[in-house]
Amino acid sequence: MAEQITPRSEDYSRWYTDVIQKADLADYAPVKGCMVIKPYGFTLWENIKEGLDTRFKATGHVNAYFPLLIPLSFIQKESEHVAGFSPELAVVTHGGGKELEEPLVVRPTSETIIGHMYSNWIQSYRDLPVLINQWANVVRWEMRTRPFLRTTEFLWQEGHTAHATAEEAREETMRMLDVYVDFAVDDAAIPVIPGRKSESDKFAGAVNSYTIEAMMGDYKALQSGTSHFLGQNFARAFDIQFLDENNELQYVWTTSWGVSTRMVGAVVMTHGDDQGLILPPKLAPHQVVIVPIWTDEEQRTRVFEVVEQVRKGLQGQVRIHVDDRDAYSPGWKFNEWEMRGVPLRIEIGPRDVEQGQVVLARRDLEGRARKRMVPLGDGLEEAVQSTLDEIQDNLYQQALAFREEHTYYPDDYEAFQEAVTKGFAYAWWCGDAECEAQIKEDTKATIRCIPLEQEPGTGTCIRCAGEAEERAVFARAY
Amino acid sequence: MAEQITPRSEDYSRWYTDVIQKADLADYAPVKGCMVIKPYGFTLWENIKEGLDTRFKATGHVNAYFPLLIPLSFIQKESEHVAGFSPELAVVTHGGGKELEEPLVVRPTSETIIGHMYSNWIQSYRDLPVLINQWANVVRWEMRTRPFLRTTEFLWQEGHTAHATAEEAREETMRMLDVYVDFAVDDAAIPVIPGRKSESDKFAGAVNSYTIEAMMGDYKALQSGTSHFLGQNFARAFDIQFLDENNELQYVWTTSWGVSTRMVGAVVMTHGDDQGLILPPKLAPHQVVIVPIWTDEEQRTRVFEVVEQVRKGLQGQVRIHVDDRDAYSPGWKFNEWEMRGVPLRIEIGPRDVEQGQVVLARRDLEGRARKRMVPLGDGLEEAVQSTLDEIQDNLYQQALAFREEHTYYPDDYEAFQEAVTKGFAYAWWCGDAECEAQIKEDTKATIRCIPLEQEPGTGTCIRCAGEAEERAVFARAY
Repeated sequence: MAEQITPRSEDYSRWYTDVIQKADLADYAPVKGCMVIKPYGFTLWENIKEGLDTRFKATGHVNAYFPLLIPLSFIQKESEHVAGFSPELAVVTHGGGKELEEPLVVRPTSETIIGHMYSNWIQSYRDLPVLINQWANVVRWEMRTRPFLRTTEFLWQEGHTAHATAEEAREETMRMLDVYVDFAVDDAAIPVIPGRKSESDKFAGAVNSYTIEAMMGDYKALQSGTSHFLGQNFARAFDIQFLDENNELQYVWTTSWGVSTRMVGAVVMTHGDDQGLILPPKLAPHQVVIVPIWTDEEQRTRVFEVVEQVRKGLQGQVRIHVDDRDAYSPGWKFNEWEMRGVPLRIEIGPRDVEQGQVVLARRDLEGRARKRMVPLGDGLEEAVQSTLDEIQDNLYQQALAFREEHTYYPDDYEAFQEAVTKGFAYAWWCGDAECEAQIKEDTKATIRCIPLEQEPGTGTCIRCAGEAEERAVFARAY
Repeated sequence: MAEQITPRSEDYSRWYTDVIQKADLADYAPVKGCMVIKPYGFTLWENIKEGLDTRFKATGHVNAYFPLLIPLSFIQKESEHVAGFSPELAVVTHGGGKELEEPLVVRPTSETIIGHMYSNWIQSYRDLPVLINQWANVVRWEMRTRPFLRTTEFLWQEGHTAHATAEEAREETMRMLDVYVDFAVDDAAIPVIPGRKSESDKFAGAVNSYTIEAMMGDYKALQSGTSHFLGQNFARAFDIQFLDENNELQYVWTTSWGVSTRMVGAVVMTHGDDQGLILPPKLAPHQVVIVPIWTDEEQRTRVFEVVEQVRKGLQGQVRIHVDDRDAYSPGWKFNEWEMRGVPLRIEIGPRDVEQGQVVLARRDLEGRARKRMVPLGDGLEEAVQSTLDEIQDNLYQQALAFREEHTYYPDDYEAFQEAVTKGFAYAWWCGDAECEAQIKEDTKATIRCIPLEQEPGTGTCIRCAGEAEERAVFARAY
């Protein structure tokens, strides 16, 4: 199995699609640019969903569901929004055997339909804030697609909130960016840089867009979640007004924020190696796989007695899978579960049973460091839990070290041009869109974000040497 | 609030839509026939989802996700399927600004696209069974729509399984029908009749369709979940073949089964009364609402100390909401939460605090029986839990008694014609589609199902007096 995966050094892009398919995360669908999320990949997504949804609810949000089909005229109400999304729309022109009077758009995002509903629901300051999230599928007609990273249909959550003041809406925008950072770091073990998008790269209809940017295994950046301060743009387009405490009519201030199935791609490309997937324990469909080893029926009986005992002890505490298939050898199973990224394997053979021990094998380490013996008994459950915690932590530390190793602070444009071919480049930027465009033309690198954390001071723009007040992170990106 | 709801006796249909809107379950969407599921209604749906999903996983199923858009040609591959669904399709003809070469259908159900994928995934008997479920939105162009009961877009789960033998597929079909019965009875407190659909009423493409049928408050039937044995119909249409243990190529046997957001409508119409919603505790977004009572600041402080103490004691054990709004009176809040169906209210006022007690008020009882005093302290948590259990049980018993009261066993056609105007009629049926059609024309009643549980024996058809081997349940239906 493992040998069928193209090595990363040979062709990273092939490595990625090999892993997606061989680890059984997804398959190509018969409709161009669409994918089927297979059970193993979908369980990973369910775990991502749960991690995010719990955080949304803890910050006062509730879920709701808005229609898939949006009147075309809605999309056209916000001028920047329509300009941004028009080229990507899928349009329903016929329903129930008849041509529709007005075409319906399959939602590419839901600011417009939700704005329309909010204008009905919000009358008074007492109705605010509205803090709603939606888990949904969306469709954007993409020309170049790749599983999870960019697909015509994808799954995501989109939060849509309305507030009485700009300040509150800005706070919400940053709160949800923080939630994304927390999820990425704590659950996905992905170090991310939170920052502001440049004007040219913000969401169509936003005043400011914020992002979390992660470095993938090929040093490219992946935008992994975004949070937008929409100002009063959609409030004006959809007439979302409320009577304030002084009985005066005001437009609300709105935000939107989203994370999609792209996060699955981020997990694959942050942690995977030439053997395949490596999954962080908090998100792994199976955190532990038990592989029993036996050669005859007598051994099988003795081994499975212990397997059952271990399984029962761990059940409810960790997500555990027993690979009891007869048709495959232990070695084949070791390879398969390593390729599929299971964080921890427990091997139990006849000799282990005799000696009252099992073997724990970690997916995140190499060679001898990978395996250790643990005696059967009460200590085992604790050992499994602490090993999973160590793996979770180690994956984050490894990814962080990798990013730092490939992050540069070039002082001149020549060094900058080289830096972006092999990682992230922090550089002063004057704020001018022309410099940004020229850099992209020269290097294929874009501004991933203007990091929120900035060392104080000013400098000179890496491109034009003009005065610069902020550093941006430049990189080639997905 | 409550007085704005049309009484059921005056206009049941108005009562239903009043409750949906005033209890904040859903709102009408700008696209004809679509609805917005508001947070309160969506949380109810999330609880339904969890109850079902847990049961699916316990019976060995896994979730996956298949594309929303299906090539039109796929729908046409199974002749009965296309005949059944063609009039209801929404069709995407344009994508990314261009007319598509082949129109895409927004999925009305996913047998076709899943059949296509299964034909790629299934090669050998070792790949079977495939036990996959999908949570998804589907679109069917409906002419007459009502929130939750029949909407152009709705949410549902659709299970799709493939098996090596007809027997296994039949077992699966019945297992999932049992799961639906178990959920309806145990979680939704809805008594249901499991049975087979008549030939004329089965799923387009099925060999046999099974259903659970419930009686609503207006004595009409609501089909609340279906499970289909699809035989080899879709296997042949999509060429899903496997090599059996003798190395011979065979078509698989498939099933599909689904429950939708219609279940929300079933809950509303089974348990609701003229005051509004009554929710079974297992599904209620808030199982308990605490309404503090105070008139001045000093009282407020004393009361809220106890409110906090009670809330903390119950947190994690039940889903609890504290209504601490200043702007509304306790009486107004009582009405509102009764209208919104919260099973149990805890009232805490200054006198209660003094006497070291609280008032528990049940939503499922009337008048004096509704309220009782419970002392503060350890016993309170147990009292709340046991009261919720009693409410859950009582709602089921009430619904069952109601159904039994409105179920008839008419002996002649005259009595039968009257019976179906006021409830369910069990009657012998010869099995002839002509009798079925004639009955529908005469009475507007249809065969809801041929119940699985049948007393042994034979009889004469209620319509034609021909020989009959089975009794069917006839009723007017949603």
